[in-house]
Amino acid sequence: MTIALNETHDPARRSFVESANAPGSDFPIQNLPFGVFCPDTKERPRVGVAIGDQILDIAAATPSFGGPVAGAAKACAAPHLNELMSLGPQAWSGLRLALSRSLSADHGDKSLRQHLTPMAQAELTLPAAIGDFTDFYASIFHATNAGRAFRPENPLLPNYKYLPVAYHGRASSVRVSGTAVKRPQGQRKRAEEAVPSYGPSRNLDFELELGFYIGVPSRLGDTIPIAAAADHIFGFCLLNDWSARDVQGWEYQPLGPFLGKNFATTVSPWVVTQEALAPFRIAAFTRPDGDPAPLPHLACATDQKQGGLDITLEAYMATDVMRRAGTSPQRLTQTSFATTYWTVAQMVAHHASNGCDLAIGDLLGSGTVSGPDKSSWGSLLELSARGREPIPMPSGEQRGFIEDGDEIIFRGFCAKPGFARIGFGECRAVILPAG
Amino acid sequence: MTIALNETHDPARRSFVESANAPGSDFPIQNLPFGVFCPDTKERPRVGVAIGDQILDIAAATPSFGGPVAGAAKACAAPHLNELMSLGPQAWSGLRLALSRSLSADHGDKSLRQHLTPMAQAELTLPAAIGDFTDFYASIFHATNAGRAFRPENPLLPNYKYLPVAYHGRASSVRVSGTAVKRPQGQRKRAEEAVPSYGPSRNLDFELELGFYIGVPSRLGDTIPIAAAADHIFGFCLLNDWSARDVQGWEYQPLGPFLGKNFATTVSPWVVTQEALAPFRIAAFTRPDGDPAPLPHLACATDQKQGGLDITLEAYMATDVMRRAGTSPQRLTQTSFATTYWTVAQMVAHHASNGCDLAIGDLLGSGTVSGPDKSSWGSLLELSARGREPIPMPSGEQRGFIEDGDEIIFRGFCAKPGFARIGFGECRAVILPAG
Repeated sequence: MTIALNETHDPARRSFVESANAPGSDFPIQNLPFGVFCPDTKERPRVGVAIGDQILDIAAATPSFGGPVAGAAKACAAPHLNELMSLGPQAWSGLRLALSRSLSADHGDKSLRQHLTPMAQAELTLPAAIGDFTDFYASIFHATNAGRAFRPENPLLPNYKYLPVAYHGRASSVRVSGTAVKRPQGQRKRAEEAVPSYGPSRNLDFELELGFYIGVPSRLGDTIPIAAAADHIFGFCLLNDWSARDVQGWEYQPLGPFLGKNFATTVSPWVVTQEALAPFRIAAFTRPDGDPAPLPHLACATDQKQGGLDITLEAYMATDVMRRAGTSPQRLTQTSFATTYWTVAQMVAHHASNGCDLAIGDLLGSGTVSGPDKSSWGSLLELSARGREPIPMPSGEQRGFIEDGDEIIFRGFCAKPGFARIGFGECRAVILPAG
Repeated sequence: MTIALNETHDPARRSFVESANAPGSDFPIQNLPFGVFCPDTKERPRVGVAIGDQILDIAAATPSFGGPVAGAAKACAAPHLNELMSLGPQAWSGLRLALSRSLSADHGDKSLRQHLTPMAQAELTLPAAIGDFTDFYASIFHATNAGRAFRPENPLLPNYKYLPVAYHGRASSVRVSGTAVKRPQGQRKRAEEAVPSYGPSRNLDFELELGFYIGVPSRLGDTIPIAAAADHIFGFCLLNDWSARDVQGWEYQPLGPFLGKNFATTVSPWVVTQEALAPFRIAAFTRPDGDPAPLPHLACATDQKQGGLDITLEAYMATDVMRRAGTSPQRLTQTSFATTYWTVAQMVAHHASNGCDLAIGDLLGSGTVSGPDKSSWGSLLELSARGREPIPMPSGEQRGFIEDGDEIIFRGFCAKPGFARIGFGECRAVILPAG
């Protein structure tokens, strides 16, 4: 399905919520990402939409909407997005259109102001009830860099260009941005050590990823045709696949990452819809000459022609010393999701190609998004060459891997002439000491 | 915790449900496994206990029980075991004792007959709401055999004797015994082929495993001491980790099994409690001289002295031709869970050793249980030497891997002089053609 541009993408539309019209806002009226929030600690979580620095309580605004949109708005009383997801893409799109009109400066319903909560006052929670979490490995630059670190003689394996490699992650330990992460303990063994020992990870890392939620399920035994695969996606977020490299390196053969990853995964609270991202597909990446064509079940001319989502992804670090000194976080990398070898449609089609069922609320991660150059690599494993080339920080400190008290902050946005900037907000967490 | 033997283990106790007293019964009054059933298609699922060839509707029997047991019985009105699990081991044990007394021939409450449903008439459903599914690799015999098949030069990897290797499986595709499994499609490449192709798996296999459910949760960031690890387990079942060997072989590097496994996992409907299995621990397996001792966080003298659970596990096959001819299923293997290198306590302690949270209803699998000899290997990959040595069937057919229409049946039981036989029932599924 090609998502058509419509009035919700009109860059001239402004909101009566003035903060949404500021040039650098992540959440202009053209974005309208969904999330789950508590207006205050006494109230239950419910679905809201971000507009500027405010959150609209959608269910509370139900009386403003007519017909089928009212049904979608009512589904936003739930403490996660799953109820809204279950209504399907037409309902999502209808609700988005109604929100865009109702929040517009010209013809909006200004009585909705009573249902706004300042984002700074709200508690944002995990947006979906996640059944299963799957993490891909879609960036060929990351796969090559990481492969070189773990297998110098054999970085990119023969299957890489034929299928989007993935593994199952841990759903229970996914947390929303702002939740501190405790440094994991685990077994690790340095090359020069004869035997492993158990203790706090010495090589804690982030992985800069794009996450996406399944909104349209598939049944066990059914496959999903590549041309329809993107239609199953509700929306996108930032995702930090925290990785204890020493634990991972010791444990991962032959069955893949386990304790090196499953102690925590952090996601941003706002889920940006496919419709909001429709203007930002570009054919940035083409398979180099000589690479195999995708097998038919992963090949879609329309998908390839539209290309990847040109979402700029950034990772920042603020050490404890920097935060105390009021120093701004240091940017470590900036990359684009459009550089990945596999598109999200290919990832979804592959996931269901054996009949595995996808459920509403399932979370999929892209894998670390690294671009071709060092300035665009998506993990410290790559950026610091496994810690051998530490990164200087403005505080005079340096970092090969993450230390206790460090905060990692991801940001993401789409920008293009003729369109409003679409932001993802932030995905952040401070690392606490082990134990 | 050591589970003390008590009156519920008394081999002399008989039930007024006569079928429970038959010598070969899987479900004597000393077993009392929990499951979820629908008495008929018009009614909602609820928790029951197996007694002979009958199922007792526990919630319906609540008025027979006094005090705190009534609370546990009421939790059995739920459509999965999670509510009962959440009450904790004392509640499970109290309910078991009350059921043992109430169903006994001598002093039982025969009015409970009104709450019995013949097992043959009931529909048994998935016993738990499973959040995450983790599969281990605890049999060193299987790890060596399977390693040899995929990596002839390097079958057992250096980490194997230091940690119970595991990976995350797919929770959404776990199904209860009796649910047919469709042959998966996928990418596979024979050694002599230059490129992979997509189509029905040519090497469909079973893996004979023991499953266990978490009943006592742990919090994110907390570890579980090895001495307390077994206390987190509610009970055990049979588990078939269906595996498409050709898909797995092509996809699994570097991140582990994914589509080769996640199309289906089958579990038996009855969950046998730790208390019922308490008499059957034996020190059958000891680490060979020269093997490293477990690191302190995985070492527990009591656990090692008590040894593994001596559960006999069997796999049978009935081809379509055999079923039509009325031929009994052919036994393919018989093994004991006590031969695994790692105990269930070690698996649980390892899983939480990095702070990963375990949730009520989580399913853990042991990995294929293979013993030292060919007669005790737990998969066709091993039994047929990757299909090169097909197994003759009584119908004159032979099988290297599973063909369409074949039914795989697992059975499990504990038997020991001086104790009643504790059975697991069956875990079975027929393979349907792909497409």
